[in-house]
Formats: sequence, C-alpha cells, structure tokens
Amino acid sequence: MILRIDRWQTEMPPPSDPDPEGAKNVQELMGGRFGEMSTLMNYTFQSFNFRNRQGARPFYDLIANIAAEEYGHIELVAATINSMLTGASPVDDGRAPEAALEQVKDRHVNPHHFLAGGQGALPQDSRGAPWTGDYVFSSGDLIEDLTHNFFLETGARQNKLKVYEMCDHPAARALTGYLLVRGGVHQVAYARAVERLTGADLTKLFPTPRIPTAKIPECQPHIERGEHLKLYRFSPRDYQEIVAVFNGPHPETGEDLVVEDEAPAGAPPVDLPPQPAVFAPGYAPEEISEIAQKLRKAAGLPDEPLGEVAPGPTMVEKVKEKLTP
Amino acid sequence: MILRIDRWQTEMPPPSDPDPEGAKNVQELMGGRFGEMSTLMNYTFQSFNFRNRQGARPFYDLIANIAAEEYGHIELVAATINSMLTGASPVDDGRAPEAALEQVKDRHVNPHHFLAGGQGALPQDSRGAPWTGDYVFSSGDLIEDLTHNFFLETGARQNKLKVYEMCDHPAARALTGYLLVRGGVHQVAYARAVERLTGADLTKLFPTPRIPTAKIPECQPHIERGEHLKLYRFSPRDYQEIVAVFNGPHPETGEDLVVEDEAPAGAPPVDLPPQPAVFAPGYAPEEISEIAQKLRKAAGLPDEPLGEVAPGPTMVEKVKEKLTP
Amino acid sequence: MILRIDRWQTEMPPPSDPDPEGAKNVQELMGGRFGEMSTLMNYTFQSFNFRNRQGARPFYDLIANIAAEEYGHIELVAATINSMLTGASPVDDGRAPEAALEQVKDRHVNPHHFLAGGQGALPQDSRGAPWTGDYVFSSGDLIEDLTHNFFLETGARQNKLKVYEMCDHPAARALTGYLLVRGGVHQVAYARAVERLTGADLTKLFPTPRIPTAKIPECQPHIERGEHLKLYRFSPRDYQEIVAVFNGPHPETGEDLVVEDEAPAGAPPVDLPPQPAVFAPGYAPEEISEIAQKLRKAAGLPDEPLGEVAPGPTMVEKVKEKLTP
Amino acid sequence: MILRIDRWQTEMPPPSDPDPEGAKNVQELMGGRFGEMSTLMNYTFQSFNFRNRQGARPFYDLIANIAAEEYGHIELVAATINSMLTGASPVDDGRAPEAALEQVKDRHVNPHHFLAGGQGALPQDSRGAPWTGDYVFSSGDLIEDLTHNFFLETGARQNKLKVYEMCDHPAARALTGYLLVRGGVHQVAYARAVERLTGADLTKLFPTPRIPTAKIPECQPHIERGEHLKLYRFSPRDYQEIVAVFNGPHPETGEDLVVEDEAPAGAPPVDLPPQPAVFAPGYAPEEISEIAQKLRKAAGLPDEPLGEVAPGPTMVEKVKEKLTP
Amino acid sequence: MILRIDRWQTEMPPPSDPDPEGAKNVQELMGGRFGEMSTLMNYTFQSFNFRNRQGARPFYDLIANIAAEEYGHIELVAATINSMLTGASPVDDGRAPEAALEQVKDRHVNPHHFLAGGQGALPQDSRGAPWTGDYVFSSGDLIEDLTHNFFLETGARQNKLKVYEMCDHPAARALTGYLLVRGGVHQVAYARAVERLTGADLTKLFPTPRIPTAKIPECQPHIERGEHLKLYRFSPRDYQEIVAVFNGPHPETGEDLVVEDEAPAGAPPVDLPPQPAVFAPGYAPEEISEIAQKLRKAAGLPDEPLGEVAPGPTMVEKVKEKLTP
Amino acid sequence: MILRIDRWQTEMPPPSDPDPEGAKNVQELMGGRFGEMSTLMNYTFQSFNFRNRQGARPFYDLIANIAAEEYGHIELVAATINSMLTGASPVDDGRAPEAALEQVKDRHVNPHHFLAGGQGALPQDSRGAPWTGDYVFSSGDLIEDLTHNFFLETGARQNKLKVYEMCDHPAARALTGYLLVRGGVHQVAYARAVERLTGADLTKLFPTPRIPTAKIPECQPHIERGEHLKLYRFSPRDYQEIVAVFNGPHPETGEDLVVEDEAPAGAPPVDLPPQPAVFAPGYAPEEISEIAQKLRKAAGLPDEPLGEVAPGPTMVEKVKEKLTP
Repeated sequence: MILRIDRWQTEMPPPSDPDPEGAKNVQELMGGRFGEMSTLMNYTFQSFNFRNRQGARPFYDLIANIAAEEYGHIELVAATINSMLTGASPVDDGRAPEAALEQVKDRHVNPHHFLAGGQGALPQDSRGAPWTGDYVFSSGDLIEDLTHNFFLETGARQNKLKVYEMCDHPAARALTGYLLVRGGVHQVAYARAVERLTGADLTKLFPTPRIPTAKIPECQPHIERGEHLKLYRFSPRDYQEIVAVFNGPHPETGEDLVVEDEAPAGAPPVDLPPQPAVFAPGYAPEEISEIAQKLRKAAGLPDEPLGEVAPGPTMVEKVKEKLTP
Repeated sequence: MILRIDRWQTEMPPPSDPDPEGAKNVQELMGGRFGEMSTLMNYTFQSFNFRNRQGARPFYDLIANIAAEEYGHIELVAATINSMLTGASPVDDGRAPEAALEQVKDRHVNPHHFLAGGQGALPQDSRGAPWTGDYVFSSGDLIEDLTHNFFLETGARQNKLKVYEMCDHPAARALTGYLLVRGGVHQVAYARAVERLTGADLTKLFPTPRIPTAKIPECQPHIERGEHLKLYRFSPRDYQEIVAVFNGPHPETGEDLVVEDEAPAGAPPVDLPPQPAVFAPGYAPEEISEIAQKLRKAAGLPDEPLGEVAPGPTMVEKVKEKLTP
Repeated sequence: MILRIDRWQTEMPPPSDPDPEGAKNVQELMGGRFGEMSTLMNYTFQSFNFRNRQGARPFYDLIANIAAEEYGHIELVAATINSMLTGASPVDDGRAPEAALEQVKDRHVNPHHFLAGGQGALPQDSRGAPWTGDYVFSSGDLIEDLTHNFFLETGARQNKLKVYEMCDHPAARALTGYLLVRGGVHQVAYARAVERLTGADLTKLFPTPRIPTAKIPECQPHIERGEHLKLYRFSPRDYQEIVAVFNGPHPETGEDLVVEDEAPAGAPPVDLPPQPAVFAPGYAPEEISEIAQKLRKAAGLPDEPLGEVAPGPTMVEKVKEKLTP
Repeated sequence: MILRIDRWQTEMPPPSDPDPEGAKNVQELMGGRFGEMSTLMNYTFQSFNFRNRQGARPFYDLIANIAAEEYGHIELVAATINSMLTGASPVDDGRAPEAALEQVKDRHVNPHHFLAGGQGALPQDSRGAPWTGDYVFSSGDLIEDLTHNFFLETGARQNKLKVYEMCDHPAARALTGYLLVRGGVHQVAYARAVERLTGADLTKLFPTPRIPTAKIPECQPHIERGEHLKLYRFSPRDYQEIVAVFNGPHPETGEDLVVEDEAPAGAPPVDLPPQPAVFAPGYAPEEISEIAQKLRKAAGLPDEPLGEVAPGPTMVEKVKEKLTP
Repeated sequence: MILRIDRWQTEMPPPSDPDPEGAKNVQELMGGRFGEMSTLMNYTFQSFNFRNRQGARPFYDLIANIAAEEYGHIELVAATINSMLTGASPVDDGRAPEAALEQVKDRHVNPHHFLAGGQGALPQDSRGAPWTGDYVFSSGDLIEDLTHNFFLETGARQNKLKVYEMCDHPAARALTGYLLVRGGVHQVAYARAVERLTGADLTKLFPTPRIPTAKIPECQPHIERGEHLKLYRFSPRDYQEIVAVFNGPHPETGEDLVVEDEAPAGAPPVDLPPQPAVFAPGYAPEEISEIAQKLRKAAGLPDEPLGEVAPGPTMVEKVKEKLTP
Repeated sequence: MILRIDRWQTEMPPPSDPDPEGAKNVQELMGGRFGEMSTLMNYTFQSFNFRNRQGARPFYDLIANIAAEEYGHIELVAATINSMLTGASPVDDGRAPEAALEQVKDRHVNPHHFLAGGQGALPQDSRGAPWTGDYVFSSGDLIEDLTHNFFLETGARQNKLKVYEMCDHPAARALTGYLLVRGGVHQVAYARAVERLTGADLTKLFPTPRIPTAKIPECQPHIERGEHLKLYRFSPRDYQEIVAVFNGPHPETGEDLVVEDEAPAGAPPVDLPPQPAVFAPGYAPEEISEIAQKLRKAAGLPDEPLGEVAPGPTMVEKVKEKLTP
C-alpha cells in the first residue's frame, strides 16, 4: 500500500502562456508506450508478481522502490500538461454559453483535452490513443524483466529528448530536464542489476541516444545537486536492500552512487486557476468554494485551507537565470 | 508523490489449491472497466487535474486520499490472482523442457498468465482485454466527477459480488469480502460529497445491487471491526480536510462515520514460491538467491532479509472458523 | 427517425436447456465484423451520408430500408443469446451470496455474460472483442458501397452457416434458419442494385458458400412461405422506390421478387425469467414488480400489463415437427 | 423491430460555409463514450436484455422507448457533420484527378472524412477513435442500469455544451440546441425511474454542468414549444406504460411532464449536394441519376421522386431571427 | 520463404520539399484498412492457409504470387513517407538540444513520426491508428476470399485516388501513379479468378471509382510501358500456374494480358540523409559511419559499400517532363 | 522487393491428431507482442526507414536480411497452426448442414479458427487479440533499434519455450525446436551489432531464460547441423556486408559464426486436406479441382501440378527417432 504526499518531486513553473499543441505532444510522456504510465505500471506489476522475494530481496526492493518514484513522475507529467492547457480557454468570466472554445477548434490540439476533460491531463499518448495494459511486461523471469526495464528506460529517454526539442514551453522544459536526470538513475539501477545477475555491462550503452544529459541546460541544476547519483528510498521502512544493488561508481561520471534514505523534499504543487469555460471545477467555481468553506467551518477546520500550494517560483527561476545569458 | 509500504491492507491466505480458471475471472476486478485499475486511475487523474484546490480543498482531499487507498486494492487483487495461479504448474523441480504446462492447455484459462507472464497478475479483464486509459473519466467538473465516481463504485460492487459467487477459492473470497466493505466506504464518501454540493441523497440507492453487505459471511469480520465506517487518511500529513465531507451517520447502520488519521496496519505480504516451469523468477531460482546473498553480504546487510513476509495465516483463519459450522 | 414495434420479426423458441458456450459463439453474429451490428450500422451510416438522394432515390431507398430490417436482426440475435444463457445460473431462489456462478467458472463461456452483464447479449464477437465503428464502410461512392454490402452479406452468410453447424440449440437453429433466408434477400437486392448500375451480374456468385439455402431444414418453412422473395418496406410512408431496383426473377429459383408494402407481422417477444444470481433484473425481482404494480395503478393503467409477450410456441413447433421424422 | 420514417426529429439548416474542423469535433457527439451511438446502443441492449418485462413493464417501456428516440439523434448528428463537410472540396465540376483535396491537407480535420468516407459522418469520436461496444453497459440490474443511464445523460450533456462552445457553425448550434433539450428530458425520465425504485432524488443534481439550459439561445425556441416536458411515444402501439414513470412536475420549472402519444412531426431531411472530388455519390453523379430515372420509369413510378426533402429553412430561420438583435 | 532484393519496384523521386502533413495522410495507404499492409497480409495469410493446393494450384499460385508483389508495395509507401518527412527537421548540424522540432509542433502531423519514430514510416493509418490483424480476411473458402480480394483492391483504389488528390508532393504522386496501375492488374486478376469459378464477370464494375486510370497523368508512363497488362512472377521457380487464370483480354483496353516470368528490374533505393534532430540513425551519424567503415575493412570488404543506391532521378524526370506543358 | 520460394525453411510433420486448443496457444508465436509477425515487421520497417544506409551499410544489411528470414518464420507458425487444426472438424464427407462443428463448441479453442477462418492461422495472439502495428518499434536511432531487437528476440525466446512446454503436439515441437535455434542466431547477431557500436557485451545475458537451447531434444538435430552458427543471406545479390558484423566465435559454444551465402534449401510444404465443414477451400472442393484442371489444360500446362508439396516426412522422422528411447 502507499502513503500519498501532496507535494511534487520537483518544483514546477506556474502557468504562463498556454500551449495546447505542446500539451498534446507532452501526452506521449504520459500515456505512450514509453511514457510514465508505462514505467509506473511495469514496475508495479513486476513487484506485485515477484516470486521468491526473500530469496531475491535486493532485486525485489529495487523494482518496488523505483515503481514508487514513478508515481511521482506521472504526477509531474500531469502537472505539465495542466499548466500548458491553462489559459487556452478564457480564465476570467468567459462562461458558457459563449463560443469560448472556438479559439482552439482549428488548432492541432487533442480534442479530448477540451471536450472530454476540463483542460486536464489524460492517460493518452500524443496521438490521443489511450494507454493500454498491453504495454506492461511482467514475465516473472527476473533477468527478462530487468532487461526489459533497461530497454524501457532507454526508449523513455528518447521520447523525453524529442519532447524537449519539440516543446520549449517552460513547463515542458522543466519536466524533461528533471525526468532525464531521474530516468538516467533508473537506467543505471537496472543496468547494475543486470550486471550483478549476468555480468553483462549495459552501461556501455550510455548514453542512448548518444547525447550526454549534461549538455541539456535544464538538466544541469539537477546534476549540480547530485540528482543523477541518488536513488531515493520511497518508503518509511521498506526496500532497504536496494543498497545491495545500487552502488559503485556512476558509469558516466565515476562519482559514487548514493542511496538516499528518504524521499526528496519536493515542492508544493501549483494550484491551477479554474477554467469555467470547460466547467473545471464547475460552471460557477465560486459556489463550490462557498460550500467548501461552510463545510470546513462546520468541521471545525481553520479558516485557511490546511493544504499547501506553491507560493511562487523559486528553483524554476534559478534554472531560468542560468539559461539567460 | 508516494511512499510505499510493503504490507497489504488486509491479511490474505497463502496459496492453497491452484485455480487458474478462477484467476482468469478475478482479473475482471483488476483490469475491467469497473476494476481497481479503474478506481485507482480515475481518482488519481481527477486529483492531478483538480483546479482551484484551495477553494475546494475538502473535495480535493477526499478524491486524492481515496486514490491512495485504491493503490492498495490493485495490490490485493494481484495477490489474489498470484495466489490462485500458484501451483498451476509444477512447483518443485518440474523444470523445462518438460511439458510442464500441458495440464493447463485445455483449460479455460487466460493464456497470458502462462505464456506472457510467469503465473502472475496482468492489467487485463476477465476476457484478457487490456485495461485502457479510455476508462478514465476526468471531466474537471467536480459534480460530474463525483457522480461518476459514485456510479463507478456501484458497478465495482456488482462485479465483486459476481466474482464472489463465481469463485469460492479462499483467496478470492478473502479479497471480495474485504473489497466489498471498503468499496462501500467509498460509495458513502462520494454520495456524501455529492449531497454536500447538490442536496441529492444518493445513499438512498444503497445497497446496489440490493443485497446487504452484511449478509456476506466474508464481510462480517471486517464489519465487526468497524471497517465499514472508517475512512483512513493515507498520508503522513496531507488530506486533513476529508473530515469536512466524510462525517455524519452511516446511511445503512446509522453509526457514526469515522476518519482514521493513519493508514491501516495491514499485514505482511505472502511470499510466493517460485514457478520454475514459467521461469519465475528464473529457470534456476536458487542461482538468483545465491547471487542475492552475496550482494547482501557485500553491502553489509544482515544474514536474514530485511523485508518482512507473512509468517502464517491468522485473521484468515478466524474468518474461516466463523464460516465453519 | 424510427418507430419501434415491440415484436420480433419471427417467432423464437422459449428458453430450454441453457447453452452458455453456444451463446458465446452466437455472439459472432452480433458483434463480429460480419455480424448484424455491422449490417445495421453500415447501411444506416450509408443512408445518413447519401448525397443527391433525389437523383438516386431508388438506391437510397433500398439501403435505408434494408437498414431498418437489420435493427430487427440484432434484436433476434440478442433474443437467441439471452435464451441460451437463461438457466445457466439458478433461476429459482438461488440468490447470492451463494456460489451460484461456480458452475460456469470452468466452462468455455464469455465471462462478461456473467460478470459484466446479467446473462444477456453484448455488442461483442465470439472472442469477446467489442464491435467497433471501424467495421463501418461508408465511402460515399454508391457503387463501392453497394459492392461492399454485397460482400458483407456474403461474409455474414458464411458466419451464419458456421454458427448453424456449431450450435444445435433450438434458439440458435431458429435464428440461423431465419437469418439465412432474410440475408439471402439482401444479397439479391444488393446484387441487383450493382447490376443496374454496372451490368455486372453478381448473382452468379450464388450461393456463397456453395451450399444451397434450401438444403437447410430450418430454412425450409421460411422458404415455403416465400420469405426468400420478399423485401418488406419497413416504413409507414417512405422508401417506396425500392420497387425500381428490387424486381425481376430470383436468381436461384426464377420466382418473381416481391416488395411487401408492410413490415412482417412478426411475433411477440418471449419474456425471459429473472436470473437473480446475476441480479437481473435485481437481487429481489419481486420487489421491483410490486413497485411497478403500484406505479401502474397510480397511473390509471389496467391490472394486466399492456405489453404483449409470447403465449407459447407455435411456428417453432411446426419447424420442429418438420424436422422430426 | 422498427419502422423507419424518412424525416428528421427537428429541422436542420442547409449547408452553408464548410467547417471540416468543426465536423471533426462534432464527431464526439456521434462516436464518443457519451455520444449518441452510446445512448442509442446502451438503451437498445438494455431493452433487449430486460428480464421479467411483464413484471416491470413501466421501466421496460421507458428504456425501450427512449432507445427509439436516440436513433433519431444519431441521424441528426450525422446530418450536422455532413452539412459541415459539404463544400470542403469543390462542389461544382472539380473532378479528380485534380488536387481537389489539397485544401484540407494541412488543416486539423479527421482525415477519414476525406480518405475513407465521402465527406460523411463516421462512428468515431473527435479523436478519430471508433465507437466501441465496450461503451455499452447492460448489467441486467435495473437500478444499476438506470443509474448508469442517468450518468450517461449527464456526461452527454457536458459534451454537448462543450461542442456548443467550440463550434458556432449554424448546423452545430441547431444540433446542440435541440439535443440539450431532448437529453434533458431523458435525464428527468431516468431520474424519476430511479426515484420510483429507491426514493433517491437525482433531480437535485440538475443542471449538471450547472448552467441552466434555458440560458442557451438555441434551446429557447424548443423550450417555448414545451419540448423539455414531453416524452414522445415512438411506437404505433407499444410502450404505453411510460406514463407510469414519466409524470409529475418538471424538476426545474415545476410544469407538468407530458407523454405525447406520437412521435414528433419532425422535418424533411436536407438533400446534400454531390461531392464529386470524393466520389460521393460517384465520380459522375449525373450518370447515376440517369440510371435511376430509367429504373423509376420502368417501375412505373412518377416523374418526381416520391421521397420528400427539405424545401427550405423555416424553423431554423426563426431561431436565427431570435438570435439576431 | 522469401529472397529479398534491395531494389524498389519502380523509381521514386529523391526527397525535395518536406511535407509532413502529406506524409500523415499517405499513411492511409500503409496502415489503413485498405492499405498495402492489408493487401500484403490478406494474400499472405490466404496463401499460408490454402487447403488442397495441388487440387486448386492455379488459384493458389495466383494469390501467393500477388502477395509477393505487395511486399514491394509497402516498401514503396514507406519510401514515399520517408521522403516526405525528410527535411522536416533540420538536416545539417541542427543537433539536439535545440528546439529542432518546434517547427512541426503546431502543424497537423502525425506526432509519432517525430516522437516515436525517426521521421520514418509506421504501420499506422492517416489517423495514427495502428494496422490491426483484424483487417485480415482468410475464410478458407476460395470464392469468398477471392471476392474479398476484389473488393479490397477496389477500396484500395479509392484510397489511392483520394491520396492523389490530397497530396501533390512529387513522391506521393509517383507512388499513387504506380500503385493505381499495379493495383488495377490485381483487380483484373481477382476478377478473372472469380469468373473462372463462378461465371460472374466482375470486370463490368471497372473502373471503380468511375474515373479511368488512363486519365491520371502520373499513370500514363506506366501504361505506355504496358504495366497495366503484366502479372510478374515474383519467384525463381514457383507460381508457374498463374497463366491458367491470368489470361485473355484486358477488360478495359482489350489488349492481351501477359505473365512476365520475372520480377521487374526496378530501381535502386534512394539513400535518405540523416535526421540528427530525431537521432536517425543517431545523434552523431558520422560516428556510426566510422565504426562501419572499420568493420568493413576488418571483414575484407572493398572501400565502397556493396549496396547500390539511386544515383539520380531518371524515369521520374520523364514523368515530370510529360506533365510539364 | 521480394522473390517468394514455395518451400518451408525446415521440414514440418504432416497433420496427425488435431489439437485445436494447442493451436490457440501457438497463435502467441504468430500475433503476440513477441511473435513472428512482430519480428518480421519490426525489422522490415527498420530497414525501410534506415537513414544513411551507405554510411552504415553492414548494419542495414544485417537488419534487412534478418527481416527476410522472419517471413519464413510466420510461414512456419502458420503451417503449425494449420496442421494442428486439421481434422478438428470431419475431413471426409461431413458436409454442412450437419452439426459438424459441435465437437469444438465446448472446447477452449479460438472461435475465429472456425467461425471467421477455415481452420487456418490468423494474425492474432493466444487470447485472440489481433496483432497491432503498435508492436513495431522503429525509432530510427540505430543503437536503440538494435537494443530493442535484442530484447524482442529475448522475449520471443521465452514465448517459444513456454509454448514448447504447453504443446507436445509434433508440429508444435518441430516448430519451437527450429525457431529456438534460429532465434538464437538472431540474438547473437543483434548482440554483436550492439557490441560493435558500443562495446557492451550482451551475449553475457545468454541464455535468457537461463535454459540452454541444447537441452531441448527437438533443437539438437538442428544444432548438430550447425544451424545455430549460420546466418543465411536471403538474397540473390544483396546484403553482402552482414559478414562485417556477424563474425567471431559463438558466445556459448565458441565455434565460428558463419555467413551462408544462400538461403537454406528448406523443404516442400505439406498440402493440407480440405475441411469442407468450414468450406475450406469450399463446400464441394472437388468442383474447384475440376475447374482448376480445365484451366490448366486450357493454358497448356502439364497434367500434374507444377508446384511441389511434401511427399512424406523424413527429417521429422529422424527427430522422432532421436527422441524415442
């Protein structure tokens, strides 16, 4: 089972210019064959189905723990898409029944972002094709599964690089900058696991595609903070045996790999403004707020909401500064 | 993001007689339109896409928190399927290349349980059709989403009842007994949320289908422990405003609804034996164990694995006792 | 638009021995690529999309009118499946929570007939794959569409023959006996339409597969009544120009083709008994009946339901007699 | 079975400016999960599979009768799409082999409207994904099915509102204006049915999304004619017991609900001009007309076609007048 | 089994102006229901499954041999798409991490051409929907299969004509010009086969759609070379009995049909330039070349590659000349 | 383009006892994600899309040439399925309309083998799910594609082993025995290609799953003939540069890898008997033979068919002898 923490694994920029065409393409990182739904669900099912856990504990712990991190990744992809869609319909008082969505009709968007959803992320790829359970590979054979995972991360890296090239929206860049670094850690982890079991050194394939992660500006702040070396333990007590696999030098930099005993601090999520034209969270969002406030009062909760949301951009600003000559 | 806890939300029986036909049908609760993948992913995406969280905090917290519990449900369904598949091929030394799988060839099983997977759960339904992202409804409209969720739980209840009727394997019964009670809590939660926003009292629809949960023997121990009244908070710090929605009397029993401030203690998972005929976790599992042991030693870990697995059945036994005249 | 008549186009036998494996296979005639959903929806969309109707009226009328008959065909296929599923779970008081469905668990059934549905027909094929809109061909080119329709009917004929061979359940035989005759009329109609437009005589392909319809015992009563010659006009006032295409001699028998100016009288539908184990129409069907009775009274309706259902088998009996030596 | 009437349930405007991007989006109302194919097929299969009809006659009649109306809705959606596609390729003599379709190549259209079809409607959604039988819910449990239907109509309402906002083409507006009113009647009907069986008052959820239908200009003429209160009986003789469920005051206006004993008069369909560039109805439509005329003559039909098509806009004009200041 | 020849069946123009929107649409000829994947796989499976080959040898040979030609057709469609995609991202040194793909983000392209693939062809249709095995019809009944094949070729012809109209890119025109002629030969072949078995003369349906192939300028050079009359035998020794079916006069021109005892000479393939922005064939293609050169040397191969690629356009130029006034 | 040779790459046994349940499962090797349709189409599309062929000729030649061999593999899988289905309906004079298929109705078969096909192979997997173009990975990045191919062959090996274990039908065993050896060659080839480009030695992963191929009795005759060392060149003239990659010692045996300059001699295909109950090749196969004979005579062909089919089992017998103690 899981405990959920209402924070993002990294800081994300607040909505700026809407970019619904970009959002359509970022969906590949959500629901594509190599998207984060796939990494999440592959590792999750492999951990569920793992036989002889006690006998192979370090490997079980590795897969189960990386699965936990991936949940945070689908969250970040969703945040990116939501951010890029915000403002694509009038934010203020542009309520239906106006032609509030006419401005997107002729654009190369995913129509479900507007007609099915409320300008929000969906488990679909860049074509609008839904993620499918047939993307899950859980053969039960440990070496097969690990080989698959290594390949999956490789395909994922390529997708991230291409989305990076296609979308220069600040949210897309913040996302891909972070995911490239973290995905790289997973590649190392699975390569090392395969090496322990077979002697094959898959890290010689790094980097694939053959562009070094460090060349990508948005990755650099994360690399400077050592994010490319750390495997976080996403559990209060469990998965302690990951250290038995994830150790030794980083194949590209030679620095020591590190197991962090806690999840990253992360950052509070951005609270997205309503999009009343698509009824999100409703045709008259303020009525919901009023009801919520009454319910909160009746339950003896304080006047201010107990949940924390992002006060304003900080780390993102720093990345931006770095990028500005 | 999430923290993962390597325990099951409830105790499950260890493998007994294999029942691969039953496992095929239990898959409906995993990857069917109304299966636990659907509840998990619907609430997860709705929480990701929630706009104006601060203004509607109690509702956001409710959906986000129930999403967290659902992760534990897909885990339980997987455990059930895995348990039912265990032993369907020779467990001992029945290694390939024998005709080790011939005994299932003519049976009404999901062939992917054996050919694609290692006698493990898959994100498919009882037909073998994969779960699809098109099962996710995330309209952004809060009332729509809550209405959907109520209906989704209703459909899920029906599926669970029918799987109960179809599969009297101990694992299937333990699963459905537990899920019926917990799903009932979610029905109440969503009904109450809708009521707060609109005044409509959906609890008058209870129970749907019209068989009281309390009539089902495997549900009774859970009901006796009050599991039908509790909404657990699956977070170290967040989702505290669920109390503003989940309160008042239970619609069927009149007892007070309760928010538990912590996740349930749960139970350690059962460690499944290898199935070498399908190479899970390998053709020669003992070789993996040897490697693992060496790695553990090299990493300075103690001799015994740090992960906990089920020592033996206890609560399950109690249920069984209750059922025995 | 349509008017619906609560009668079946032909008489069907009441439920007898349940045959859920047969029902699984009959689904091919419902939701397969060549099933009745396909004939219905192909002709329906072609009629919707028909350009220059006035200029090509006889052809428009032909397609639109045959579309109307096909609606009755999906109804008959559903009736057959429902009949074959009736009794596959206990009919009397075998209410959940018993293991009422265990008797079908190990059988080669469509699990959705029991887990998703209430022992009822679904828009799926014999594999359990859903009917899909991609089965619709509506090119807009009249000759293409007609050629397609001819081919579609040919494939449908083959499917019906094979289902006939596979399922000797009385309902399946009554269905295929009727549909083979009626589908034959549509083959003639489309062949003639193609001939009018191009001179190509597709009737030389008859019969495909090369077994004469008249050799099938269950077809003979329908042939004796001339059903193989008649195109019914399924409309109070419209589609009168079908006579301009559907005329001349029947290609196999030489008899005159006939346009009947009215829909066939048909037969009242069989009222299927409840299957409380799958909650159809509910866990306690008698409670629904009581409510219904009160509502009827309150609305000033007579004591007896106004809808007519089959009193008992008649034509079916005759077919049976014919078959009995 | 059905009788088909070659009229539309409401008047629709003739083709004006082509809007193929709009047509792509209107497809959501045809083949989307909440489109009219879904309402049609859900209610149709539920009526086919209804067990114990006599005992629950008012409910059976309700579902079966609304199913009949939905057929007219897919017809209207098709008419809208066809109208919006008309003129997107040259209408006059722009015959192939020219680059007649180059003007749509770079636009955000559904390519199947041109490459697979003849600028006509398809059973697909706004993404171009086909409608699938897995959208049909027919559980057999009456309360479940009715709850589902209520939710389905709610989702359908949202889709219609969003298409309204996205497409201000006259045909799209006429369509959504009409469907919003008629779908509202179905919402009331299903809510009332649920109320009769359980006491739950779902009408308190109205309107969902929370924009009153009466605020939408294109709905107003229909409301003025009382279309929001009437349930038409789409059958010459059957479904008379709908009055036992559909009665009482309208939940929003308090006016009395009415059962109309006949289908609406409707309006003759618009005859769409040929689109020879996509071979609809052919490369040389006039040749088809000549053949048709000969066949008509040979069959003794009068010189003028017997089918009626729209002479010119009337009600549509009135709506337009109303909208013009 | 097959031998592969590294030449194209016809000459194709080298990349010119990129046209990714066009490439998206040409995909219909690859992975659509009537695309070349469908013709290839339908005939291939029918030949694999052919029962009683010796007894029906001429028909077996015909289907098996045409299947072989179709392989060359998917190759040509791929070549066309690849050509049209070339240059859509910077060809020179525009390496990532730049925003090299931003120029296609807002355009109506298939995102998988860039995010999943390396600006290369995919087995998808114009919507981006994957080709599916359900497009294969292999009933086993020879007459059914042949009738199907005739209809399949007819649908394919229509698709080709429409792609012709939509895409005036030189590669698309060269492709459709060639395929229309060759597909026409297959239509004749299947029509003749049906005629031999049943007497039905399907050639009276020619041409469908009703535009003569000879009217299309890009078809004319092929017709002048007699390509519309020849059935090539794509085998060193086999399929010699096709002459027993493919003979007599061409239904449109009256000229004699001819069996060519060898495959066409064809033309060497165009070697496409790298697209480093999408890592095709890599981020740094020159490094691959260096390795390849070393490997070649080590293996004792000559300095120049042994494979032949197109030196420059010749026949294509001739077509162009013909088209230029 | 290709030339087709009407021989199988290896000898296959003639039909013996029918095993339709086995045939259902063998379909995984045809249309599953790791089946031969996938290997064929992945390598084919990768070769079509290969950029800078001249600069990377040895790698292009390798992929293109292996693609050619895979065509022969789908042919062998089809032959196996066809063989196992032969006799599942009456072979002699058991013509429809009998209940000729009733004997398979209750069995765990793929219903499409009988209802859609004529007891023949289909592009589906063991669930009956169609092969889909989304199984193709053609990223354009050479190292990615090669890594993928290595993983694909690994997954394929696992599937073959499991089918081996599940099906001891002689045809299934002959198939898997052969494919395991040949697939092993492809694994070596792709591993070597990756090593040349990156230095990573994937052969250390051999064998995966960890059962040596040589332990499988049906593989041994092929190994004895050195089939595990040879890469055949499937082309009259092309793909000569494969020698630059495929060389050096075999990773498991140390023997020298060999490029064979020609395709294997193979064996003539088995001619399958008619199955008139499913109309394959017709309801009255002898009528087709008569027509064929007339056509052959009219074309001046000799009395005996020119195509060669298997005279009787030889190599298969030898394998069998080897297996018999």
